[in-house]
Amino acid sequence: MKAASQATTGLDIKQLMQRLGERARAAARLMSRAETAAKDAALLAIAAAVEQRRAALVEANKKDLDAGAKSGLDSAMLDRLELNGARIQSMADGLRQIATLPDPVGEISELKRRPSGIQVGRMRVPLGVIGIIYESRPNVTADAAGLCLKSGNAAILRGGSEALHSNQAIAACIHAGLSAAGLPADAVQVVETADRAAVGELIRMKNYVDVIVPRGGKGLIERISAEATVPVIKHLHGICHVYIDDLADLDKSVTVAYNAKTQRYGTCNTMETLLVAEGVAAKVLPRLAALYRDAGVELRGCARTRAILSGIKTATEQDWDTEYLAPILAVRVVAGLDEAIDHIQRHGSNHTDAIMTQDISRANRFLREVDSSSVMVNASTRFADGFEYGLGAEIGISTDKLHARGPVGLEGLTSQKFIVIGDGHVRK
Amino acid sequence: MKAASQATTGLDIKQLMQRLGERARAAARLMSRAETAAKDAALLAIAAAVEQRRAALVEANKKDLDAGAKSGLDSAMLDRLELNGARIQSMADGLRQIATLPDPVGEISELKRRPSGIQVGRMRVPLGVIGIIYESRPNVTADAAGLCLKSGNAAILRGGSEALHSNQAIAACIHAGLSAAGLPADAVQVVETADRAAVGELIRMKNYVDVIVPRGGKGLIERISAEATVPVIKHLHGICHVYIDDLADLDKSVTVAYNAKTQRYGTCNTMETLLVAEGVAAKVLPRLAALYRDAGVELRGCARTRAILSGIKTATEQDWDTEYLAPILAVRVVAGLDEAIDHIQRHGSNHTDAIMTQDISRANRFLREVDSSSVMVNASTRFADGFEYGLGAEIGISTDKLHARGPVGLEGLTSQKFIVIGDGHVRK
Repeated sequence: MKAASQATTGLDIKQLMQRLGERARAAARLMSRAETAAKDAALLAIAAAVEQRRAALVEANKKDLDAGAKSGLDSAMLDRLELNGARIQSMADGLRQIATLPDPVGEISELKRRPSGIQVGRMRVPLGVIGIIYESRPNVTADAAGLCLKSGNAAILRGGSEALHSNQAIAACIHAGLSAAGLPADAVQVVETADRAAVGELIRMKNYVDVIVPRGGKGLIERISAEATVPVIKHLHGICHVYIDDLADLDKSVTVAYNAKTQRYGTCNTMETLLVAEGVAAKVLPRLAALYRDAGVELRGCARTRAILSGIKTATEQDWDTEYLAPILAVRVVAGLDEAIDHIQRHGSNHTDAIMTQDISRANRFLREVDSSSVMVNASTRFADGFEYGLGAEIGISTDKLHARGPVGLEGLTSQKFIVIGDGHVRK
Repeated sequence: MKAASQATTGLDIKQLMQRLGERARAAARLMSRAETAAKDAALLAIAAAVEQRRAALVEANKKDLDAGAKSGLDSAMLDRLELNGARIQSMADGLRQIATLPDPVGEISELKRRPSGIQVGRMRVPLGVIGIIYESRPNVTADAAGLCLKSGNAAILRGGSEALHSNQAIAACIHAGLSAAGLPADAVQVVETADRAAVGELIRMKNYVDVIVPRGGKGLIERISAEATVPVIKHLHGICHVYIDDLADLDKSVTVAYNAKTQRYGTCNTMETLLVAEGVAAKVLPRLAALYRDAGVELRGCARTRAILSGIKTATEQDWDTEYLAPILAVRVVAGLDEAIDHIQRHGSNHTDAIMTQDISRANRFLREVDSSSVMVNASTRFADGFEYGLGAEIGISTDKLHARGPVGLEGLTSQKFIVIGDGHVRK
């Protein structure tokens, strides 16, 4: 099956998006009942197409890169936009990896017999149509399409206008793979207009779209959350904390706090604020400060931190609320667990927070009372990730409370309905 | 602890609601870590208070009933509004029943060791603050408060203005019970102003309210869904179907189709449209028609139905989309399973639909392809209910796809966060 053209002749944006929506809805019905073998065959065929069309992908990407350079995109943007051999291979590998994951659709759990005689259970089903809105990285087109496909959903993808040629070239691979496996090409549609009004339509088409997943900077996600009437799975930002308790193993604490900050700076699960119990601050902070100094991490401390680490900058109130995404770390000395939890509740972003302690009661209190999507004991915040958690892949990390929380993998793109099996049973 | 007064002197509605929100948020923190024993003690103490204050409840209710009669409420409304001895006892029994349910909060599932050495699992946690908006039935005040309390949430309850005295009297019992158990009285707050603007504020206080559960007529729920920026767990209506397949056991089919329509007429899980495969229509419809006639159920049929059952009314297109909540049934003869599923997809409300068939392949297709919150095989749609499903109690039935689907019990008022247990593990 071939995807219908999106030629906009005579169609305004609203009509264009409604048509995409109708096609997606129809494709979603077919996808929801697609066999696992067909979905996996499509994923493998898309991976093969991506590899085979490597040259065409690079060529399409070059058009975007040239246009981007002309329009003055900065080097970080251009880097994100680039599709090179390694990145193309990584797209193909990612699709093959999704093919190896178990199919969540149709899984029946908790089928229990009730006193009335009926059996009641839950069946996992796709959400339906998923709208993905993302910025410059074209690999998201393949990753997101792969996850939606495997979970039996239809996807409408809206990438950045600066990546349009790249995204269209990837979409051609996706359609080739879907067709090869006998699945509807409309199961993955890429919005082909650069008109920004398309996003406004997409996030309000409640009849056609079941959930929106925005991927990108805080600005994009805030705008979409504010305007969407379709439910949004989002995370705005990650202000992650490590709290070193006075009953912590200090060697492990130094190792973890160093890793949580320096293993990568630009990721949402990187520690941005270190909290240290006053009882161990004088012992642990100088050791950490030496390591951070060698790594080129700038420290900004509260008054009590600065009494121990002379010469570092003063942390202002604003520092506690800042996601640096850079080699900068805010440091605060706290009285103990209660003050640490208070700080996290006030300044955290419900993303990922960790405690270092050997005390089981304190560990349990931290696990229970810290209201974040991932809460950790004696482990680096950098583990908050779909691959590390064994979800296989992730479409994003949700800091919301409803539906999916934390890394969202295939299961987060499904829901569960109740099934009831009787044998002529009636209610009395 | 005593609930602070809501005296509105000098406070506009927005300020009033913000204050309620702040108090609820503070109470939610305490509730999230409350011991199961304390929550159960509170439930039992509230039940005891409801019984002890029976006379005061009846007296407060009489004020509402008198005012309602004066303002011209119809008899159905007045009936829903009434608190009599049996209904008061039923509130107390319901609270004691919630106390017997397992506490979902803190439950850890799927704790698995990953190749990196960390253990990853999920912990069930309360949603936070739940806003419940309902109409005339004052018993909802106790039921909803009980479910929110047991699931570790704080609740803001906004009942109908016609039930204000009754709701305040019930709230006094709730506060007495919370205080007796050492829990914050602000964990359950009843909005005491009759001003409708309070609802408008409640459904937009994203900082203070995590989810809104509207309970009432379609008009109320549509209005709230359209205006809310806080996520809503809702079901709009129940247009439930029973499809009698040509491979069905006809005796069972007659029993179930009769029960699904006549066991109660006014409930959302009552069958509103009967679909019958043409292969068995001539056999099964006359038997059912005789039973329905004796029960006083009016039939409205498609042309093929009327060719079998002469003398019944014609079903119009509108009938397929109508939730009668009355002794009326729309009947359609279909070619078979595909046409039945098509009809349900077009006209259903994603609530509850059942197939009668002895064929396992058709049963499985129906289970998988019908996109409703409850899908049944050989059982009456009337089973779609939190008690019947073993959830213990329900706060409503969700026909949404995200988060909770079907009857929403204690678990639906919680979510799961990830927990990670390491021993100094870092990411490589």
